[in-house]
Order: sequence, then structure tokens, then C-alpha cells
Amino acid sequence: MTQSFHPPVRTLMGPGPSDVSPRVLEALGRPTIGHLDPAFIGLMDDIKRLLQYAFRTRNALTMPVSAPGSAGMECVFVNLVSPGDKVIVAQNGVFGGRMKENVERCGATAVMVQDDWGKPVDPHKVEAALKANPDAKAFAFVHAETSTGARSDAATLCRLARDRGVLTIMDTVTGLGGVEVDLDGWGVDAVYSGTQKCLSCVPGLSPVSFSARAQEVIQQRTHRVQSWFLDMNLVMAYWGGSSQRAYHHTAPINALYGLHEALVVLEEEGLENAWARHRAHHSALAAGLGALGIGFVVEEPWRLPQLNCVTIPAGVDDAALRRRLLDEYNLEIGAGLGPLAGKVWRIGLMGHAANRTNVLFCLGALEALLGRTGGVAAARSAYEATAKSA
Amino acid sequence: MTQSFHPPVRTLMGPGPSDVSPRVLEALGRPTIGHLDPAFIGLMDDIKRLLQYAFRTRNALTMPVSAPGSAGMECVFVNLVSPGDKVIVAQNGVFGGRMKENVERCGATAVMVQDDWGKPVDPHKVEAALKANPDAKAFAFVHAETSTGARSDAATLCRLARDRGVLTIMDTVTGLGGVEVDLDGWGVDAVYSGTQKCLSCVPGLSPVSFSARAQEVIQQRTHRVQSWFLDMNLVMAYWGGSSQRAYHHTAPINALYGLHEALVVLEEEGLENAWARHRAHHSALAAGLGALGIGFVVEEPWRLPQLNCVTIPAGVDDAALRRRLLDEYNLEIGAGLGPLAGKVWRIGLMGHAANRTNVLFCLGALEALLGRTGGVAAARSAYEATAKSA
Repeated sequence: MTQSFHPPVRTLMGPGPSDVSPRVLEALGRPTIGHLDPAFIGLMDDIKRLLQYAFRTRNALTMPVSAPGSAGMECVFVNLVSPGDKVIVAQNGVFGGRMKENVERCGATAVMVQDDWGKPVDPHKVEAALKANPDAKAFAFVHAETSTGARSDAATLCRLARDRGVLTIMDTVTGLGGVEVDLDGWGVDAVYSGTQKCLSCVPGLSPVSFSARAQEVIQQRTHRVQSWFLDMNLVMAYWGGSSQRAYHHTAPINALYGLHEALVVLEEEGLENAWARHRAHHSALAAGLGALGIGFVVEEPWRLPQLNCVTIPAGVDDAALRRRLLDEYNLEIGAGLGPLAGKVWRIGLMGHAANRTNVLFCLGALEALLGRTGGVAAARSAYEATAKSA
Repeated sequence: MTQSFHPPVRTLMGPGPSDVSPRVLEALGRPTIGHLDPAFIGLMDDIKRLLQYAFRTRNALTMPVSAPGSAGMECVFVNLVSPGDKVIVAQNGVFGGRMKENVERCGATAVMVQDDWGKPVDPHKVEAALKANPDAKAFAFVHAETSTGARSDAATLCRLARDRGVLTIMDTVTGLGGVEVDLDGWGVDAVYSGTQKCLSCVPGLSPVSFSARAQEVIQQRTHRVQSWFLDMNLVMAYWGGSSQRAYHHTAPINALYGLHEALVVLEEEGLENAWARHRAHHSALAAGLGALGIGFVVEEPWRLPQLNCVTIPAGVDDAALRRRLLDEYNLEIGAGLGPLAGKVWRIGLMGHAANRTNVLFCLGALEALLGRTGGVAAARSAYEATAKSA
């Protein structure tokens, strides 16, 4: 007979899932109700409104896709892109590459704009690509690259594309709730995110939002969306504004309880306060890592506070050290991906996990396993300095 | 400020989600771990093995899709069907129609075999369609029609198709755990199910399984699977047998805790015992409904014990009565769909919800609201008769 599964209690400081708020874990276990229950309709309305708050948008079509972030990405592409279209895709890490995959599987052409991993997307290259491809329908980029910890200048990138009437598609899986996201201010036409990063919710849902302009493109397309499950023309009838919801698929009820609670927590704290908290703990972590002689991959202005991509010190066995962190400290940090594999660690400070306990604990564990000193002390000083200046 | 959401406590006797086992609800809230955590790999292996048990298969490619049943359906079709293919689809309710949608969105042709809603799929019609379409690549049917409560003869249907070398695709979203499912015995090449029916888990995951023959078709296809998220060539690298799992997408960790627990509960009870329990409570419910003058839509041999599709008594306002059941009794039963809307109710007895308390409670509530008598007494007699004969 198989035994019930009781997971080890980890501290999750990788690229996500991050530590989940106990309030969210508790909410997941509340009694299941039907997906057409009147009480559930109220929950859906709350979630839409709270996601509009988190995304800073008035987009009516704002909702969670009933599947992880990769499905959110696919949802955006299959709805906006048709066979024969041309899409300019900026790549500066893993997820730009996945966008390319999505564009091509829609029967469209991806024009790639490449930047080094760890660098932000270069607006000049994007501008050149837009000029060279006046027939491009959309421009897609990653706001917060989970594979490198680099933020890109979404406001500038979106302006360049919109000035030419090109649709803007943004990945902010790791951004939402951790750094400024301003859909309406930036002019983002379609966006997808994840729940398991700075929203401190469990993985499995992908918040998306479409501008009125994007919604029009979806409604007027002549080639049917290749995915039935992700076809927003159908999903809208369920998540739309009317009280008469048409059944599309069975919503993941309890996962939505969790997302609702996570968004309530975010609203209680306030978006700007959440961003400031991520910055504060990042500063302390950075001070500590600096004292341990560990440097960052991304230049300072473009670092995501919630995802610290740092160089593995010379002579340290990557996999062995991460395994010891897990076995001896129940602490998970992330490995590098692609060209950064074996060269970097990704230390997450996402949502609920962006707190002083985690910062000091992580630095202490690294000190012990690397046989170095001064990291915890440096972080503590950084916290004290912040407290004094406040 | 938005308040936390505390759902009403319902008794779920519709077409799903069904009442969730308290053990599953509790499991959902266990601490989240990473999707590449060594402890999580063990959980995945358990889930694969337990799904093989539930499906009665030795298929290596057996796993839950990280999204609801509709995505499971799409996963099966996008992986097996390529543009230009021909697929014979049997329709005797809502879900055969959705299969057609999926086939067509893959750029393939669906040859429809129609049966009345409430009837099983007619093997003679299927045989004729197979003869008339020797170039058909696959045959798809619904084993347990959620919209009508009709079971079809999966063994015969699969044999007809396999005798002609045609791939068999089966929907058993409502079947798994409630009535006999025997993938290997029947010769099913691809199947999808859901978690929120007879597995008594929350909605959001879709167990699928592919035979070695189906897996070969997937591996040898020349046209790329149109969905990146559902491409089994990629998913296999994560859910496959090797201990070196390649990251594909972030698995819905906590939802998988719930599925694991639901499958452990099923294994503890034993598959055959679970089927017998569904039959026993269905018999009692049927006796009670009969005494209330409420008849079944489906002929007896083809009734799914877990989904009782019954005719609404003349003069009764469908929506008003269901609303009173919900408001006054916190009891959810299902409405009719399509041509059956307004004519039938769908009363579920699925998984954990297939119990004596629910049967007697539901009959009592119907008695009270319909102003009829004798339902509860008849069910009680049925239980006593069963107990005596046992």
C-alpha cells in the first residue's frame, strides 16, 4: 500500500515556486463548491478585480488561465497570432526562446532580436527590428527574465512598438507583485504571469490580461484559435462580466481559493509596499553576498530584487553545494539554465519569501558551507542602516 | 479591502466537482516544495504507479496533465492527430461534440457517428463508419458521457477499431474510479480523465495514458505538436522514468499532493470495492427516485451509477427547484445540457460523495420540495435488503 505523502518543510529561495503564504495554504483546503455556484461567481469577480489592481490595468479581459505559466504564454500567442503572421521576439534568456517556439507552432514567423543572457533587452535593436519589419503584427518580450534575473525597460519597449501600431506582448511571470508592473501606463496589449513567484501562491494558474485592442484582434480573427481549451472567445463567456456564465471547462476551484487569498494579502500590504519590501531584502542579501565575495550577473540598474542571479565562486561544486543546502538546511536555491548552467545560482526572494529570516538564514547557510564569513553581519548592518534612515 | 473568501459548505451531487474527501483537502495545504526537489520525484513516481492501477494499464506514459479535463482531451488529440488526418468520432452527448472541435482545430477531418443523447454509442454504426473510412487514423468515443449518464461498451468499440489497425481514443472523465475501466484489457490507445469526479479530488488535473503504439505515433510524427504546453515529446522528459528530470513547466505541486492522496484512498479501498460501492448507492438512490415517480433517461444496462440522469417531473420549475436545493439545503445537483436542458437533472454519486448520507439527504430534500413522499423509505429498504443479502 502506498503511504500518504508528507513533504519535507523547505525554505524555497529558488526561481519559484517560492515560499507560499500560510494563509494561501490554508485557503486551498476550504470546502470545494461547484464552478457554477453563485458563491463562486462572486469569487471570480473578486479575482478579476484584484488582478486588475496587481497588473495596474482596467482591461476587462483579465483573469487566471486554469493552468501554469507556460499555458498562459501559449494562451496569449494562440489567441493573438495566426498562420502567416510575423512576430518580433526579443530573447535574452530561456523564455524568449519559448516565445519563439510558441510563435512557430502557430504557423507564424518569429523575427528574433538577441541580447546576451543577463542583459536587458536593448531598445535600439528592437527599434531597428521594428523598422526593418514594418509588416510585424506583434512584438514580444520578457519583462522579468526568470532564467537570468534581468529586468527590461518595458515602458520604452512598449512605446517603440505601439508607435508603429504593433501589438505588445509581455511575459512578467516573475515580475508581478515583486517590481513595478503598469500595463495601462506602459501600453501592454497582452500579458501573462504566474502565481508561484511574487504572489506567493502555489503553482498551477497563470494570470493573463488583454487590452481592448487585443480583444478586438481575438474577436475578429478568421482562423480559429488552434487550442479549444485556451480559446479566449470561449473562455470569455465563462469569465466575462455577465451573471449568466456559460460553462466552458471546470475551473480549478480550490486553486482559485488560493489565488484569491494571495491577492487579498497583496492588496492588504499594498502594491508599492510589496515592491519596496522586495527591494529592501534584496539590498540586504546583496550586501551579504558581496561580503562573501559573490558577485551578481546582472548590472545593478537591471537587477530584479526578487531573483538574484549570482556567480558561483571558483572551485565550488555547484550541484554538490545545492544538494547540501537542501539536505542539511532544507533550503532550495536555483541552478543556472542554458549557457549559465553550472556558472550561476538563482536566489529568489519572492513574495512571502522576501523576508529578513530567509535572507539571514540563506547567508548563514552559505557561510557555513563555503567556509567564509561576514555575510550575515553585512546583511544585518544593511538592515540596521535602513532602519535608522527610516 | 477585499475579504478572504469562505465558501458555503455544500453537498456536491452534480456532475462534478463532487464532494472532495477531507483527506484530499487536508493534503492540498501541505508545505509546497520545488518541482525539481528529489522528494517531489518520489511523489511523481507514486502518482504514475497509482494511475496505472486506476486505469488498469502498464502504459509507461501515464501521468496527470497539469490542467483540467478539457486540456487532457486536447492533449490526447494534439499529440495523436496531424493536419490531414481523418478521425471517426462517436457523439452521444456534449463531449463527443467537443472531440470534433479538437479534431478540426488540429487541421484534421472528423467523421461523425451520431447517437441520441442518453443512448450508448451503437457499435454497428461505428463498424459501418470504420468500413466506410478505411483511411481513418483514429476512432474516438466517450466511455462515460457526463452530459447524459450513459455508459458505452468500450471493450466492443475498441475491438472493432483495433481489428482494423485504427487508434482508439477514449474519454472517461466521469468513469475513472466509478465503474470498470480496463485500458489494457480493452485495448485503449489514449485516454483522458478528470480528478473532480469519482476520484474525489479537486478539479484542475487530467490523468492521461498512452499505449506503446500511441507513444510511437507521437514520437514519429513529422508535423510538430501545435501545443508547446501539451507536447508529450517534451512532457515525457519531465514525467519520464529517468531520475534526471528535465524542466518543462512548473508542475502544480499542491494539486498533485491532492491527487496523490485521492489515489491512495482509492488504493486502500480497492478498485472493485469502489465500483461496488457506486453501484450499491446508485441502487438505493434509484429505488428512492422511483418511489418519488422520477424516471431515468438512460436504459438500465447503460446507466452510470455515479451519474443519474433523471427526468424532471411535469410542472416542476427546473431552475427554481435547483436554486431552492442550493439555498435551503446547500445541495447542488446538475442541470441538463444541450437538448436535455430544462428536461433532466443530473444527480451525481461520485467517489467520496457515493455514500448513504448523501443518498438519504438528497431524497429527503427532493421529497420536501416536491411535496411527495416515500423516497427516503424506499432507499432505506433497498439498503436493508442489501445488508440482509450480504
